[in-house]
Amino acid sequence: MPTIVVEVMPKAVLLDPQGKAVTGALHRLGNTTISEVRIGKRFELTVEGPVDETLLAEVRAYADDMFSNSVIEDVVSITVLDPSTGSATEAA
Amino acid sequence: MPTIVVEVMPKAVLLDPQGKAVTGALHRLGNTTISEVRIGKRFELTVEGPVDETLLAEVRAYADDMFSNSVIEDVVSITVLDPSTGSATEAA
Repeated sequence: MPTIVVEVMPKAVLLDPQGKAVTGALHRLGNTTISEVRIGKRFELTVEGPVDETLLAEVRAYADDMFSNSVIEDVVSITVLDPSTGSATEAA
Repeated sequence: MPTIVVEVMPKAVLLDPQGKAVTGALHRLGNTTISEVRIGKRFELTVEGPVDETLLAEVRAYADDMFSNSVIEDVVSITVLDPSTGSATEAA
């Protein structure tokens, strides 16, 4: 069954307190090469049947309206993973 | 500056209450093609300087020990994005 992966990240202009905490922890552990960590969300949608343009349009609308808050977050990618062929196709 | 993306998902055997809620919402909205939604995390690590094997080993350790709880979560991918070439390289 194909899987659609939707990825949402906090907008670059906004402070990400969760990521800030992780960045601080890394630096306290002695890491100096990682300058910033930002933490977002990854949605895996399991699809019954084939992925067509209609479904992708529906998923794009869900991504914008339901999976992300457009005031503070950006949908960074929508990818279709097909386990039968092992392929990953960028859909947005 | 290169970015390392670490992706963490709840283990397949575990119930994901957040994803379950979204699946229920999609079905109430009339969607019948998406059978399951699972929600995980996406970490974007901004790296100063080049990404070498030492840093990747360090990031793999952080991913296992700090970014994920191995009792309930799996690290599903570690990818290096290089903005100068636009390439994405799977590193785990």
